[in-house]
Amino acid sequence: MSISNAERARILNEALPYIQQFSGKIIVVKYGGNAMISEHLRRAVLSDIVLLHQMGIRVVVVHGGGPEISDMLKKLGKEGRFVNGLRYTDPETMDVVQQVLCGKVNKDLVSLINLYGGKAMGLCGMDGRMIQAVKKAGDGFDYGLVGNITGVNPQAIYDVLAGDYIPVISTVAAGTDGEKCYNINADTAAAEIAAALDAEKLIILTDVLGLMRDVNDPESLISKCPANEVPALVEEGVIQGGMIPKIQCCVDAVKKGVRRAHILDGRIEHSVLIELLTDAGVGTMIY
Amino acid sequence: MSISNAERARILNEALPYIQQFSGKIIVVKYGGNAMISEHLRRAVLSDIVLLHQMGIRVVVVHGGGPEISDMLKKLGKEGRFVNGLRYTDPETMDVVQQVLCGKVNKDLVSLINLYGGKAMGLCGMDGRMIQAVKKAGDGFDYGLVGNITGVNPQAIYDVLAGDYIPVISTVAAGTDGEKCYNINADTAAAEIAAALDAEKLIILTDVLGLMRDVNDPESLISKCPANEVPALVEEGVIQGGMIPKIQCCVDAVKKGVRRAHILDGRIEHSVLIELLTDAGVGTMIY
Amino acid sequence: MSISNAERARILNEALPYIQQFSGKIIVVKYGGNAMISEHLRRAVLSDIVLLHQMGIRVVVVHGGGPEISDMLKKLGKEGRFVNGLRYTDPETMDVVQQVLCGKVNKDLVSLINLYGGKAMGLCGMDGRMIQAVKKAGDGFDYGLVGNITGVNPQAIYDVLAGDYIPVISTVAAGTDGEKCYNINADTAAAEIAAALDAEKLIILTDVLGLMRDVNDPESLISKCPANEVPALVEEGVIQGGMIPKIQCCVDAVKKGVRRAHILDGRIEHSVLIELLTDAGVGTMIY
Amino acid sequence: MSISNAERARILNEALPYIQQFSGKIIVVKYGGNAMISEHLRRAVLSDIVLLHQMGIRVVVVHGGGPEISDMLKKLGKEGRFVNGLRYTDPETMDVVQQVLCGKVNKDLVSLINLYGGKAMGLCGMDGRMIQAVKKAGDGFDYGLVGNITGVNPQAIYDVLAGDYIPVISTVAAGTDGEKCYNINADTAAAEIAAALDAEKLIILTDVLGLMRDVNDPESLISKCPANEVPALVEEGVIQGGMIPKIQCCVDAVKKGVRRAHILDGRIEHSVLIELLTDAGVGTMIY
Amino acid sequence: MSISNAERARILNEALPYIQQFSGKIIVVKYGGNAMISEHLRRAVLSDIVLLHQMGIRVVVVHGGGPEISDMLKKLGKEGRFVNGLRYTDPETMDVVQQVLCGKVNKDLVSLINLYGGKAMGLCGMDGRMIQAVKKAGDGFDYGLVGNITGVNPQAIYDVLAGDYIPVISTVAAGTDGEKCYNINADTAAAEIAAALDAEKLIILTDVLGLMRDVNDPESLISKCPANEVPALVEEGVIQGGMIPKIQCCVDAVKKGVRRAHILDGRIEHSVLIELLTDAGVGTMIY
Amino acid sequence: MSISNAERARILNEALPYIQQFSGKIIVVKYGGNAMISEHLRRAVLSDIVLLHQMGIRVVVVHGGGPEISDMLKKLGKEGRFVNGLRYTDPETMDVVQQVLCGKVNKDLVSLINLYGGKAMGLCGMDGRMIQAVKKAGDGFDYGLVGNITGVNPQAIYDVLAGDYIPVISTVAAGTDGEKCYNINADTAAAEIAAALDAEKLIILTDVLGLMRDVNDPESLISKCPANEVPALVEEGVIQGGMIPKIQCCVDAVKKGVRRAHILDGRIEHSVLIELLTDAGVGTMIY
Repeated sequence: MSISNAERARILNEALPYIQQFSGKIIVVKYGGNAMISEHLRRAVLSDIVLLHQMGIRVVVVHGGGPEISDMLKKLGKEGRFVNGLRYTDPETMDVVQQVLCGKVNKDLVSLINLYGGKAMGLCGMDGRMIQAVKKAGDGFDYGLVGNITGVNPQAIYDVLAGDYIPVISTVAAGTDGEKCYNINADTAAAEIAAALDAEKLIILTDVLGLMRDVNDPESLISKCPANEVPALVEEGVIQGGMIPKIQCCVDAVKKGVRRAHILDGRIEHSVLIELLTDAGVGTMIY
Repeated sequence: MSISNAERARILNEALPYIQQFSGKIIVVKYGGNAMISEHLRRAVLSDIVLLHQMGIRVVVVHGGGPEISDMLKKLGKEGRFVNGLRYTDPETMDVVQQVLCGKVNKDLVSLINLYGGKAMGLCGMDGRMIQAVKKAGDGFDYGLVGNITGVNPQAIYDVLAGDYIPVISTVAAGTDGEKCYNINADTAAAEIAAALDAEKLIILTDVLGLMRDVNDPESLISKCPANEVPALVEEGVIQGGMIPKIQCCVDAVKKGVRRAHILDGRIEHSVLIELLTDAGVGTMIY
Repeated sequence: MSISNAERARILNEALPYIQQFSGKIIVVKYGGNAMISEHLRRAVLSDIVLLHQMGIRVVVVHGGGPEISDMLKKLGKEGRFVNGLRYTDPETMDVVQQVLCGKVNKDLVSLINLYGGKAMGLCGMDGRMIQAVKKAGDGFDYGLVGNITGVNPQAIYDVLAGDYIPVISTVAAGTDGEKCYNINADTAAAEIAAALDAEKLIILTDVLGLMRDVNDPESLISKCPANEVPALVEEGVIQGGMIPKIQCCVDAVKKGVRRAHILDGRIEHSVLIELLTDAGVGTMIY
Repeated sequence: MSISNAERARILNEALPYIQQFSGKIIVVKYGGNAMISEHLRRAVLSDIVLLHQMGIRVVVVHGGGPEISDMLKKLGKEGRFVNGLRYTDPETMDVVQQVLCGKVNKDLVSLINLYGGKAMGLCGMDGRMIQAVKKAGDGFDYGLVGNITGVNPQAIYDVLAGDYIPVISTVAAGTDGEKCYNINADTAAAEIAAALDAEKLIILTDVLGLMRDVNDPESLISKCPANEVPALVEEGVIQGGMIPKIQCCVDAVKKGVRRAHILDGRIEHSVLIELLTDAGVGTMIY
Repeated sequence: MSISNAERARILNEALPYIQQFSGKIIVVKYGGNAMISEHLRRAVLSDIVLLHQMGIRVVVVHGGGPEISDMLKKLGKEGRFVNGLRYTDPETMDVVQQVLCGKVNKDLVSLINLYGGKAMGLCGMDGRMIQAVKKAGDGFDYGLVGNITGVNPQAIYDVLAGDYIPVISTVAAGTDGEKCYNINADTAAAEIAAALDAEKLIILTDVLGLMRDVNDPESLISKCPANEVPALVEEGVIQGGMIPKIQCCVDAVKKGVRRAHILDGRIEHSVLIELLTDAGVGTMIY
Repeated sequence: MSISNAERARILNEALPYIQQFSGKIIVVKYGGNAMISEHLRRAVLSDIVLLHQMGIRVVVVHGGGPEISDMLKKLGKEGRFVNGLRYTDPETMDVVQQVLCGKVNKDLVSLINLYGGKAMGLCGMDGRMIQAVKKAGDGFDYGLVGNITGVNPQAIYDVLAGDYIPVISTVAAGTDGEKCYNINADTAAAEIAAALDAEKLIILTDVLGLMRDVNDPESLISKCPANEVPALVEEGVIQGGMIPKIQCCVDAVKKGVRRAHILDGRIEHSVLIELLTDAGVGTMIY
């Protein structure tokens, strides 16, 4: 569709109240899935983030990188072993996780943000001792070097924001129990970081439309859900499978003070902008 | 035309390079004419200015107010006297000019900017001794309290910008020759203020399309004109009448270091946004 | 009387303890009446304010302008209508109030302060959304666009003080109930501003000696009066007529934390200096 | 003479232009002689200095203390030896000089300034390595530990001024040639400090009216003298004896950029205030 | 013993954890006794202090000067009179105390710190009104101008530290009861200053090994002693004589929030460094 | 060898002048070779860096990682191809270089510095657009994604230093010619970074004693060599093979304003400390 410049100007003008609403606020975007794999979507998400930063909204990017890790492990001929559905992280796997996340995925995102005119700085949980973790334990299973977060020190993120950089964070944590570092779940890390930063919003980009009563019926999307109604939805089976931990991260973030948490469909181009700068709500909001 | 939210997001995204280009720069907008009289256009211009400010562009508004002054003089039963095409400004007229510009037009603009979510502060040339002037002289005519600018002290404007306010400036100057204050031409004041602020752009909103080779042919609009080609165009008669002083202000601003000066058609809604944030050039640019 | 330079120096020296007492403190001066009308007194008050500012005392000027407003209304042939003793403010009157206060009286004061070597910035309640008001109501009368203050945001005043300017404030307020602006009582505004700034003193310049037991006997001046004794004095009829609202403003300011409020006789040259920098108390102090 | 409070206020008001002239400027006062010995005069000088500081003028006090040193040497039964008119400073004498100046005179001045409501900090040339000196030499005489200033580092003075303290400086210098410290001439030190601070004024308080053509005729006082006319006045014999080095210090200061240097009569109460804050010039100004 | 450079580097490296422990913390060192008299020890202590300051530890030096005072009093032929074990301080003695402490001892320390590459600023209790005192009273004796501390205003010390100077403080206090100044006990002053600065440590340098169960048996040194066990030790007679007030100062400091207080043997070269930067505890620690 | 605590303290004290010499200065350490491979040496180097940072010296770490890259390429079964002695960097190799350097080596160094009590932040040339490069060209060979540095923007390093972090930099650069990133020589990068930071010193840790006239004779070490004598030494064959580019980096750094550049033997424990904090010069200094 061809849009005249006059029309463009009008549309920009109409975004003003939305921009004002989030001006100066911190928005943590958990970035992953298709939005990170497709070059087309990646370009859209990252340039949207640069735009939001330019408009005075303080965006913090937290990323995972499962597929790239799997690729590299496969190339290295390393068989994955799974414990209770989670990849067992032996030291060699941990090395691969660290180098792929912190070295490849992170710095590629930094490069792309720079390409779109932003100024990014890539960090991981060890930088400035930002994310502390201990070995995941307590359920009788041994997951190797999978960690549970025990604390987030947001100072490094604030320092980076103060220098007008967009922080891009890999979810590898510093061990405080003698281990050098731990593999941590990226959704959980994003939620904890959002809480530590007292963020306005946590946005988790996924490959689904959001929380649906019937996964086959887009019309059944639940747009808004109070955090305290989540347990009932789990019990009813509306929230199930891989959606449970994602929704739980949203609930945790909200309980720790984040104003609103969103499950957004990263397959929709510009879904972050649509959510923030238009009157459309996309995906599911936990509040 | 109905625009989907997805489309809106894409359009916002496409404005990014333009926003980046002007980020942190100072843009002086001389505001007057229809864009100030029509409620519809006024709303568009002022909310656009709030949007640009929100995006990190430092907009300084300089306004005139001829029609309001004439209205008030008429209500007071005061006959205007014109000297060489300029209104003779006797002390009583000067009082009216001062109170209408600084008290009515200025504070109404401040109110409207506040209404659109901005934070404005209204100033005139006396505040912080910003604009200094002496009695206009040298051409054998006596214009009364019409002044020529002898200096602009931009400190007050910088202070106001530093407090994250949008400065709105009435073009009444402090006399440095014993007179309390002078009436000064708003276009000239805008040009001098732009120069003193080392502005990126001076934008003069008018009620014409721009500089045209044939005033009856919109197709003959001159989009760009180097400052040093202006004298020839005056000689040729392409620039004539009321356009001469306006273009001269642009030339003066450019010669004093302002990167680009524009004559924009204030009758076109969002013309400032179209000029700054799209690939369309509207009006005439002097560089 | 001729005073030797040695004598002058001694007198300056003797002011030291008074200057030290108010150093860094905020003093709100409600300026009006004869002290504003007489050229002679105006010069004295404004240069005194410049002097106090120079000595490190943070003076905030709040002004009214009734006579100038009446003059302009008369020139415009506009009949005043009074409701319950207050001028009914229709939209046209409001325009005149706004332009005379914010454009004429305010900027003239700014010019004069600059003339005496100070650096002033003129503001009104709309600038930086400083004074918020709603339509005056509750007593069954309709006063038109007369407002009641609902909040004072002192940030703009602090910003202006931080830039080493003397703030000069017109008492026109931003409407928060849909109206653009409201006419507000200047004494009330001064009291609310003093409270919002946690001022050391509120000084209201009037055309009377102060509060007197017998208005015909200067010897009956009440120099000091605790705020909580005011109701009894009203009941006794000692405080009556126009003095009631003025004293009430003082009481309100004191109740909201202002250390001391004064009714000073603006007809006495340098009465502000006499009050602040000598051992003489002039007028009436509410504490 | 009894002065009414109204008169007092008027006099304070009349000082405004003088205060404005020196606002923010640095004035170095070399304090010594009767103005330091007489309790009455001391009180006047020090409270004047507190007043000037309070008014925004940055006063730096440099003091000597010859009489106190002589007293202490006498109490210790130490015979003074003079070389070429200067006291020979052996190590034991140097110890006495240091302790009397830095410990007694300096801290007593600090106490008194505090008493008058100021906030003083006492320093000497060793603090922050402020004054550097080497052994006085070059004229064939040996003066012991008498030093010539080789450099003044004003940083410590700026730091102290920035903390809103009045700096009080003893003229003992740090040796840069192996000696721990040197006795230095207080007038010279004051001139060098004024030059290093790019002061507006150097004021040397003495026990004479100023430079006079005929020392017996007060009417012959030379009020103003350009620095370049001093050599001729020395040759003529108008400047002679102890006045030569004092005037020379003034000339040196002026040549190094101090705007004006003054020889003031410290026996006149408030002579500093008279000089700075009235239209009277007292003493002799070198410019 | 000759130490190779490789060995030196290793030893420096091994000090790292100790340096980190005290980084940014305030350590108040009460300096006196042999460590101040012996040139050899003085050099060691002062260069150690410069080293600690260089390493980011904020050292504040508080000094006494009893022997120098006695010397000067003797030279002046002034008989000391003692009351209840304390020197009676008549005004003449007070003058000597002030000039020797503030003028001689203090500035000599400043010179030496400068010599070792530090940047010192010498202060006393009058500078910036740092230490306030009243006449010591309450036990029926008259000690003359001996004072009890009533308050410590640490602002001047913070200001001096902020300028990256090492503060060196003479223990003479400003009288708040009309007297100009008072002689105060240096240990007490150091303890009060440490408390006012919320110091990490108070270190009192003395001429004994520390607190010993048997003063003739170095092996009986009590390395650590909780503040609340001190009364019992006094009762037992383990703490006696001159040790009682020193330990009491330590206890007072600890009770007012200082983390640890130490009695160190100033006769041991580098005892401060040994205490702070090695695993050896020397002397007695109260905590 | 057992060293007493007294001896330790003395040695610490003796380091003072060396610490003072480098206080506040920037030292760029190119870290690689055995000093990075041996756990023992790594611990020594990194804790030394933490110590220097703690002492107020601003250390910037630049690292390579050749062996780790080779290891990973071997694990991936990727045959190396060499062009003109340099590894040909195809896109897949570039990915490995990036992830090993930025993800593994860099973050491991960050973890270790944190372990020794420092606070590190790991960056690469893309972060904050720090290092810009274009494809290496001009000698007729094609090296693939090997880059030549065209600019270093030190702002990100200054920002990280200002936050009191130790910057750890991977030498991967942002392409300014369309490529996302380039592999760059770590020695060259360190030299360019040192120049851009106007560093006091560049220290290149290697696995040789330094520059030797006879590589088999340690006694033939050249301790100091002016930059302008290097060409003759190359011609003579004294500087040859892999030493040529290393020395050239030192010469380039010195020519661009770095005060001194050093080739140090990283196999000697604490060689950096020995060089900086003792009177021994180790390795070869270019100046």
